[in-house]
Amino acid sequence: MMGASLAASLRKQKDPPSVTGVVRSESSKKWILDNNLADEALAIPEFKQYSLEIRKYDLIVLGMPIAANGRLLTELAPLYGESRWANGGRSSGDSPDPSAGSESSPLKRPAENDSDSASDSALPLITDMSSTRTFLEEVASRHPELTFIGSHPMCGSEDAGPSAFRDRLFQDRLVILIRSTLRPSEPESTYEKLRIFWASVGSRVSELNEVDHDLVLAYLSHAPHLVSSLLATVTAKRPEVARINGESPIPITGGGLRDMLRIAGSNPEMWQDILTTNRKYILESLKDFRNGLDELIQTVETDSLDWWSDWQNRSRKYRNEICGYEEDR
Amino acid sequence: MMGASLAASLRKQKDPPSVTGVVRSESSKKWILDNNLADEALAIPEFKQYSLEIRKYDLIVLGMPIAANGRLLTELAPLYGESRWANGGRSSGDSPDPSAGSESSPLKRPAENDSDSASDSALPLITDMSSTRTFLEEVASRHPELTFIGSHPMCGSEDAGPSAFRDRLFQDRLVILIRSTLRPSEPESTYEKLRIFWASVGSRVSELNEVDHDLVLAYLSHAPHLVSSLLATVTAKRPEVARINGESPIPITGGGLRDMLRIAGSNPEMWQDILTTNRKYILESLKDFRNGLDELIQTVETDSLDWWSDWQNRSRKYRNEICGYEEDR
Repeated sequence: MMGASLAASLRKQKDPPSVTGVVRSESSKKWILDNNLADEALAIPEFKQYSLEIRKYDLIVLGMPIAANGRLLTELAPLYGESRWANGGRSSGDSPDPSAGSESSPLKRPAENDSDSASDSALPLITDMSSTRTFLEEVASRHPELTFIGSHPMCGSEDAGPSAFRDRLFQDRLVILIRSTLRPSEPESTYEKLRIFWASVGSRVSELNEVDHDLVLAYLSHAPHLVSSLLATVTAKRPEVARINGESPIPITGGGLRDMLRIAGSNPEMWQDILTTNRKYILESLKDFRNGLDELIQTVETDSLDWWSDWQNRSRKYRNEICGYEEDR
Repeated sequence: MMGASLAASLRKQKDPPSVTGVVRSESSKKWILDNNLADEALAIPEFKQYSLEIRKYDLIVLGMPIAANGRLLTELAPLYGESRWANGGRSSGDSPDPSAGSESSPLKRPAENDSDSASDSALPLITDMSSTRTFLEEVASRHPELTFIGSHPMCGSEDAGPSAFRDRLFQDRLVILIRSTLRPSEPESTYEKLRIFWASVGSRVSELNEVDHDLVLAYLSHAPHLVSSLLATVTAKRPEVARINGESPIPITGGGLRDMLRIAGSNPEMWQDILTTNRKYILESLKDFRNGLDELIQTVETDSLDWWSDWQNRSRKYRNEICGYEEDR
């Protein structure tokens, strides 16, 4: 869905770049060509047979779930090591084995090269569209030969698969680029290229380090997804609620709960990876929420409701701050 | 908002009934007449001076917050008592004081009268649009002379005041009529009139007793509203989240959290009444949720993620059941 949406967003530009779609199945390959979403389509095994042919690309955007993106990054690393060796080096490495000796001695990046022609033989910049960042920065830090900057486009859908693509998915959405705390930074000109790329599909671009990203996203996205799933589960498990709601001519569910449950039970594969790779901050966020809930229950239970109006007004103020809404009261 | 929306829904009918709007302020009175939402407008004090003139109405729909609706019901009761006395009785009461002696001896309703003309001198049926039901049934049970059937239209908006009206607010929404466990039932023909009334503005009508209603609504609406407010509060109170989100060119909030926070901090006055009058079931629901959260935290903390895919798929199934969606996976 994300990859096909990106391809569609690129192909509706005035002067569209050439797009190769790399997909999981032969049927997806046929589908994206039939629907003119790419100039060329490869199944993943075909792409993996590529070696220095990947030089023909300017940018590789990994669009798989996080763990699979991590594996692809590891699999791409030898090409970058080989290239470094074959080209006499964009770095100090002189071994074709990319993992040798680089574990704990971050390579110095080459100085920025202002000449565009120098990039003829360069290997493509790799980015991705994953929802957690520390895991991928750890993978990338084990392969400093990679040219990699992580991207997190803040958009998505409950639907999966290329046929769910939307050609305005990235329009006006935030894309967070990662400044790693674990690796030396890619040159500013490489960041600039990636900023221009995302801006070309209508996105707003910002930067965070991977730790801040994962903490903030746990609160603003990951834990709320779990809360939504939990709300569906707890509600449906109360027998009278399930029975009476089931017997109603139309569901008794108000619009509020309906909105709160939109993301309940989202794509389990994708969310398993998010949960695995951001467990620490998701737990912190869920525990903060549990403490808040304990306090709320105690207050509702024991006190007069003198606190209510203030609490509720503050909740509204917080909600407006979080979502960037104007004051509405 | 609810009252003005109801008036607008009635007035766009082919053969609209005559509508009198009873409003809190002189400025609202002017506003609803200027906007042609009613044939006649009264400020509440004017309406309260009405006595048996209210016979000219077929139906009174109380659209204030719950506690205010309860007070209005109590204030209307003497008229119904007086009428009963003046008319020689639609019931066994013979005192103009409606509260005298009726507390624990539910009156017998008159037999259903099939002749429509008999309603000439009858006092109007009273209904309301409140979100909790036990409180109002308790009030009504103290005034068995009232002709009252509670209605809960399952619709609303974060916006308040007549200018926020929507003339399709009730279209395709559920209206729950109450079969009281505390009072003898109004005649079937009175229920039928009320069903026809709500159907005329496009609503689907069902029935519940007040206890089932308040339990089910605690889970399907009231507690989720508190969870939404709490989610806003907990999220905004983590300092890094507030700071980093505030510094972002556009808020980092994904669409999921944005939907979950739509109802955060809704109208404190209205929700104070809901909380006061349905505290027991709201607490039960919040505690169920807290227990579910404890279990979820423990599972995320200690286990492998073997459970995740099943749990998440079940959440999706529950969500589809609750909302009445087709299976989507």
